[in-house]
Amino acid sequence: MKKIDMDIVVIGGSAAGLVAAMTAKSNYPEKDVMVLRKEEKVMIPCGIPYIFGTLGTSDSNILPDGGLVNLGVNIKVDTVERINKEEHTLETEDGSVISYEKLIVATGSTPFVPKSIKGTDLENVFTVPKNKVYLDTFYDKLKDCKKIAVVGAGFIGVELSDELNKIGKEVTLVELQETILGNAFDDDTSLVAQDILTNRGVKMLNGVAVTAIEGNGKAEKLVFKDGSSIDVDAVVLSIGYTSNVGLAKASGISVNSQGSIKVDAYMRTHQKDIFACGDCAQKRDFITGRIVPIMLASTACAEARVAALNLYDLATIKTFNGTISIYSTNIGETTFGVAGLTEKRAKAEGFNILSATFKGIDRHPGKLNNPHYQSIKLVANKASGLIMGGEVIGGVSAGELTNVLGFIIQNKMTITDLLCSQIGTQPMLTASPAAYPLIKAAEMISRKMSRR
Amino acid sequence: MKKIDMDIVVIGGSAAGLVAAMTAKSNYPEKDVMVLRKEEKVMIPCGIPYIFGTLGTSDSNILPDGGLVNLGVNIKVDTVERINKEEHTLETEDGSVISYEKLIVATGSTPFVPKSIKGTDLENVFTVPKNKVYLDTFYDKLKDCKKIAVVGAGFIGVELSDELNKIGKEVTLVELQETILGNAFDDDTSLVAQDILTNRGVKMLNGVAVTAIEGNGKAEKLVFKDGSSIDVDAVVLSIGYTSNVGLAKASGISVNSQGSIKVDAYMRTHQKDIFACGDCAQKRDFITGRIVPIMLASTACAEARVAALNLYDLATIKTFNGTISIYSTNIGETTFGVAGLTEKRAKAEGFNILSATFKGIDRHPGKLNNPHYQSIKLVANKASGLIMGGEVIGGVSAGELTNVLGFIIQNKMTITDLLCSQIGTQPMLTASPAAYPLIKAAEMISRKMSRR
Repeated sequence: MKKIDMDIVVIGGSAAGLVAAMTAKSNYPEKDVMVLRKEEKVMIPCGIPYIFGTLGTSDSNILPDGGLVNLGVNIKVDTVERINKEEHTLETEDGSVISYEKLIVATGSTPFVPKSIKGTDLENVFTVPKNKVYLDTFYDKLKDCKKIAVVGAGFIGVELSDELNKIGKEVTLVELQETILGNAFDDDTSLVAQDILTNRGVKMLNGVAVTAIEGNGKAEKLVFKDGSSIDVDAVVLSIGYTSNVGLAKASGISVNSQGSIKVDAYMRTHQKDIFACGDCAQKRDFITGRIVPIMLASTACAEARVAALNLYDLATIKTFNGTISIYSTNIGETTFGVAGLTEKRAKAEGFNILSATFKGIDRHPGKLNNPHYQSIKLVANKASGLIMGGEVIGGVSAGELTNVLGFIIQNKMTITDLLCSQIGTQPMLTASPAAYPLIKAAEMISRKMSRR
Repeated sequence: MKKIDMDIVVIGGSAAGLVAAMTAKSNYPEKDVMVLRKEEKVMIPCGIPYIFGTLGTSDSNILPDGGLVNLGVNIKVDTVERINKEEHTLETEDGSVISYEKLIVATGSTPFVPKSIKGTDLENVFTVPKNKVYLDTFYDKLKDCKKIAVVGAGFIGVELSDELNKIGKEVTLVELQETILGNAFDDDTSLVAQDILTNRGVKMLNGVAVTAIEGNGKAEKLVFKDGSSIDVDAVVLSIGYTSNVGLAKASGISVNSQGSIKVDAYMRTHQKDIFACGDCAQKRDFITGRIVPIMLASTACAEARVAALNLYDLATIKTFNGTISIYSTNIGETTFGVAGLTEKRAKAEGFNILSATFKGIDRHPGKLNNPHYQSIKLVANKASGLIMGGEVIGGVSAGELTNVLGFIIQNKMTITDLLCSQIGTQPMLTASPAAYPLIKAAEMISRKMSRR
């Protein structure tokens, strides 16, 4: 038995674990900090789809250890088998016993494989885990496959389909809902994305439930609920992820009914000196406070910073106030972003809302510097004008414009606040100050409010 | 005498006038609204430098009238000669008498030509006014000029120099200060911009005072304070702008000692029913409250919205709380942006501040999708952590990232707020969530604060 004394231990080395460890060591430099992770080399989670096309290898998608090493964080590649809460120790696969004062659980998530689909154990049926060894095998095997079905049109499914299409595969994207990215965007935005994706060559099958994968040892046919099927050489399941909470559960850390570790606004679990963050931890919606199944590297990193900042000195000014669900993606030349509640989610929650969409152009004059149209949709509470959500379609700059929306929501700004706001504009870089789509959309809602 | 009855009249048709009129008509659709402007065709103010290179003609830089026309705003091309405050009427050059209930003065600004420089009346000495006819003549005459000196390295001077360089002119940019864009950026940022500009072929003369332009009828020589000179075919003076307040002064509207129209937070002048906005109106700094000589289309447009929203129903939630000075520009592939106070301005004002700069990359992994390094500098109050300013260098997306900084400052966020904020990230569009330069710079300041 090796005995290792640490002050702060982080279990998990992906986005949340990395940021938690770096923030902890930066803020408590006198403490000994260790990251315990299963993988020798960690994948950049959001970069995984791009391995298959643009990057061409998982070696270009490795989360660098430099930040940890430079700060003096210890990295141990090992698997934690038990957390002894009372003793404040961990037992690992290699026989080590590691003591801690504070523990951060950031064990992440694993692809969800629904039991309702038969044949998922056949060869050439893949999921998209954050695991380099698995992804390398997956990538190699795909080389001999031409017809690939991707099941599930969330961000991973959409980005992966586009990448596989880029390298000449015949891709069919299969989705139960009527649109792609339907959990993130309103239908009007999703349909624009879907048009671009299909125009680029990805074949869409919407509103289709997969019941089985069939074949002689390996995937040959994808079968749907209505009995029809398509021929395939490989199937990729990108249906979602479930929190990795086996260790937490076994160690008596409370898990909610959705299967994520219960945490408070300081990212504390219900057990003393144990924090959790990232995909394994429970998420609450910023606006409704309800538990939501959101998994996002950006949310994970914010939670990780909050957890680490509160380890030894809780402060109400350092709380995590719920996920704003800030997403963005890129299909071809077009960027799609969303922050906060979509119109359909807001309505489903029972909010009385007003929404408006303004379509302009992201340069002024509109011919300059590789322009792209830019469309902004805002969703606001009817009574107060509070901005609850926004969606953007545009060029590359729409990625950061999505963060503008995020800060507007985080700061609980109203439509009136927005109308009185200052926006920096430049001909080569942004829309016109006189027709900035974000402000124009706010004006449209303002007029609807005054018409009450 | 033609008598015209209006409810709301806006004098000036550039950014502020356009936005004021559109906002007024949108919010008070039952009112008759008129824009009175001198120019048949209005230039997009920020697009003017690009006429000379990228656009190739002023015809591609016309502010469209469609927004006004579609709303039913009257446009009259005429010059106002007198404002009769008591009678609530205007008298114009063509003999019209126009009555108003509410008046918005948005008369803009004119290039400043310092008396200390002799020979500015020579042929081939130009300024950069917002006047299509002048600019077309200027552009035509430049065709026969090879060696061009641009005097004044603010945004107009820098952008114009780069554009003239693009079309093969020999450009010398002459600046009194030691760096370009010195009123907007800290020296570290300015020097990066200056390096790029000179590497692209613009010759810089820093720390040089111009005393005269000499020549036989037309500009042939630019003479400096030390007696030295350079040969020129043309000189462009881009030294700054002064508010157009002749009409206001003559009509008894109060003007401050800096020569701009005095306004309150509702953009009201000191005279009943008369508002002012844009370059002709006084500007206060958002943080210090001091009167500052900032002229920005984006500030002008925000002021215009505030003025128009308050015409008939003042509300404290619709005030303009001072200019945040959000600037951005683009030199070659590199974008420079700034919002709020720079380090040097904050120190000169007497603030005890902390600053930090983090340099990362605007994609993750960093090889994806035409990446550019991204550097963020934050300036925060030492005691409170309040974020007072920020600068960014990056790719195209840095334009909207500058607006992220703007919203952070507008919402009076602190370094701790920022550390607990959520940032949406995507491999093809933004920096990594684990190394997002904005957050990393905040972390650096946070560590300096805790070291006190």
